[in-house]
Amino acid sequence: MDITVLPDALVERGQDGGRIFLVVMDGVGGLPHPESGQTELEAAQTPHLDALAARSSLGMLLPVGPGITPGSGPGHLSLFGYDPVANQIGRGALSALGVGFDLQPGDVAVRLNLATLDGDGRVTDRRAGRPTDEEGRRVVEKVRTALAEVDEVELFIEHVKEHRAVLVFRGPGLSADFADTDPQETGVPPAPVTPLTPAASEVAGLIERVLARIGVAMADETVINGVLARGFAMFEGFPTLEEWFGLRALAVAQYPMYRGVARLVGMDVKDVPGSEDETVAFVEARHGGYDFVFAHFKAPDARGEDGDFAAKVAAIERIDALIPRFTALEPDVLIVTGDHSTPAGYGAHSWHAVPVLLASRWGRPTAASFGEAACRGGDLGRFEGKHLMSLALANAGRLAKFGA
Amino acid sequence: MDITVLPDALVERGQDGGRIFLVVMDGVGGLPHPESGQTELEAAQTPHLDALAARSSLGMLLPVGPGITPGSGPGHLSLFGYDPVANQIGRGALSALGVGFDLQPGDVAVRLNLATLDGDGRVTDRRAGRPTDEEGRRVVEKVRTALAEVDEVELFIEHVKEHRAVLVFRGPGLSADFADTDPQETGVPPAPVTPLTPAASEVAGLIERVLARIGVAMADETVINGVLARGFAMFEGFPTLEEWFGLRALAVAQYPMYRGVARLVGMDVKDVPGSEDETVAFVEARHGGYDFVFAHFKAPDARGEDGDFAAKVAAIERIDALIPRFTALEPDVLIVTGDHSTPAGYGAHSWHAVPVLLASRWGRPTAASFGEAACRGGDLGRFEGKHLMSLALANAGRLAKFGA
Repeated sequence: MDITVLPDALVERGQDGGRIFLVVMDGVGGLPHPESGQTELEAAQTPHLDALAARSSLGMLLPVGPGITPGSGPGHLSLFGYDPVANQIGRGALSALGVGFDLQPGDVAVRLNLATLDGDGRVTDRRAGRPTDEEGRRVVEKVRTALAEVDEVELFIEHVKEHRAVLVFRGPGLSADFADTDPQETGVPPAPVTPLTPAASEVAGLIERVLARIGVAMADETVINGVLARGFAMFEGFPTLEEWFGLRALAVAQYPMYRGVARLVGMDVKDVPGSEDETVAFVEARHGGYDFVFAHFKAPDARGEDGDFAAKVAAIERIDALIPRFTALEPDVLIVTGDHSTPAGYGAHSWHAVPVLLASRWGRPTAASFGEAACRGGDLGRFEGKHLMSLALANAGRLAKFGA
Repeated sequence: MDITVLPDALVERGQDGGRIFLVVMDGVGGLPHPESGQTELEAAQTPHLDALAARSSLGMLLPVGPGITPGSGPGHLSLFGYDPVANQIGRGALSALGVGFDLQPGDVAVRLNLATLDGDGRVTDRRAGRPTDEEGRRVVEKVRTALAEVDEVELFIEHVKEHRAVLVFRGPGLSADFADTDPQETGVPPAPVTPLTPAASEVAGLIERVLARIGVAMADETVINGVLARGFAMFEGFPTLEEWFGLRALAVAQYPMYRGVARLVGMDVKDVPGSEDETVAFVEARHGGYDFVFAHFKAPDARGEDGDFAAKVAAIERIDALIPRFTALEPDVLIVTGDHSTPAGYGAHSWHAVPVLLASRWGRPTAASFGEAACRGGDLGRFEGKHLMSLALANAGRLAKFGA
């Protein structure tokens, strides 16, 4: 599997390489405000990031490729040095990781839409009226109890959010080669479990019985009384950052999705911070003994998705105020970037390139500010996210010369 | 076949995506004038393109790759989102498309040089003294009449220009695995028909008989009395823009070559405009119901090939004056670029990167002018042409998020 863009032989796995900190401002990239012409990051007052930029190499990072809007999974895999296209994780697997589920190689995960069916078993609402999290969780717990009686395979079901849940099958001989049972329209019944390969045919009956059992467990419900399966995926496991890059890695993130992706590549996830301040506090307390520290801040993305330019600016300024606490820990390489852009004017993840700052002794600084315009003219140019780890390792003295 | 760089699953083929216009100023990229230091595009007075640039993302496009000078076929395929290296069309096939011939999958096309042979059948002029188009056409029509008598395969022959013609074989069991019969030198006879694979051996006799029949038809000519076959190619068909990207596409181009490439990827080609003005008029009249409109302007390339800097500047200014008629149609995405550079100082297609402007609601503008210098600092950076379609689709709201 061509899991990384970096020739394996170059990685120096000794204990004496520099320490790398990766600070992700989720969704930091933006679009110009129609009045000022400045993006959120450019409009924000960021004295600490600007000072850091003045001794950094700057650039613009394409998480996946031109025009491609990354989800959080591929966006982060790319930052961690894994080719996000070669390593597509099924959405079911990502959902499971996102709720902190400890996926193991060979597990088959599938996302479930909680849905409403009519008396004839036809879908009337593919999202069951977008139930509250409380309501969704209540029904999923009922299903979990019912599934405990299934003994031909190990099953795990977790509520994710609103109408979304994830179901994991664990056992020998499984397959994920099934079409979705979500018919993508209302007025028709869920699609039957359809195997796409001979191997899948052998376990199709099992999948069918499990989905039927879920239906039975919901039979007395009026709103959430069916499930639609989407994105069957077998989790094949990833080489860890330690195996691949020789990095003992720590992740600190408030939200489960990001802890999930970090765990996927073998990072230690010890604590669950309750705030941005606590995110830094856990880095301060735990970073000793780690070669790579990933700290995740969600707010710029969340405010971008809200479409609130001013709130995204404020979120960026709050993170800026935390930067001195990272620099005080004296990492050899400090990278600040995002996993994608979430322009407030667009109100969603977008395909636009993301500003990136890489501070180390070996920088080629080009500007004393951190923003799209400054980064566009930076020494790192515009590059695909999967190359970020190579740059980090090089600046940390962890890559050998290529060729004699 | 890895025909596009875009993961298929991302393409949203619904009817409600934005409309994309692609205006190609053929050969627009240039080199600095020795006196002014400005390229043709920079020297041109282009108020409309400059205004468009002020609300666009700019960049520099490499049609194929660094140092590669594209022909018109690969240059345009790249702009249309097809990998021009993975999808090499034989020159014979391109010639057939260029003369508006309706190639079908399985057809074998080959370019013919009209040549002069001496009494012993040795080539004395590989281009028959570069005949006038009238003269070339006259002989090709005579050959066509003779070929009508061949009944073991369907044959089409078309004159292209001067000494160039194209011959197409249509029928079951054909092969294109033959070496050229053009010996590339004079004083020797044409090379025999040489099959390169076992499959080709089975139809080598047929190819030989057809070429011999052409020779007989020319026997009473003194100048054009032989043909040299170059670039046998089987046309394998392409997925259309509609199949591949969900785009119902219209092409408007004055010259057959560009209509041919457009037809190759399934664009509708309804009218043959007689002027630049009429090119826009046909777009105005026909664009309704299309998701993608390609308008082609030949003059910058033609004047570049003439080596006439001032005339190329004037050609660009003429197209600039037409831009408001495109913007008046309110496409969601308006792209202006070239399929390659044709610097007047170089006098031919060149490998230099091509300025590109992409206007949409989601632009990151960086300059209020359209030219090499402005585009070099643009937000799109420098990218391979095959990624242009991904950017166009993203800006038109036609791409799903990649991963959860």
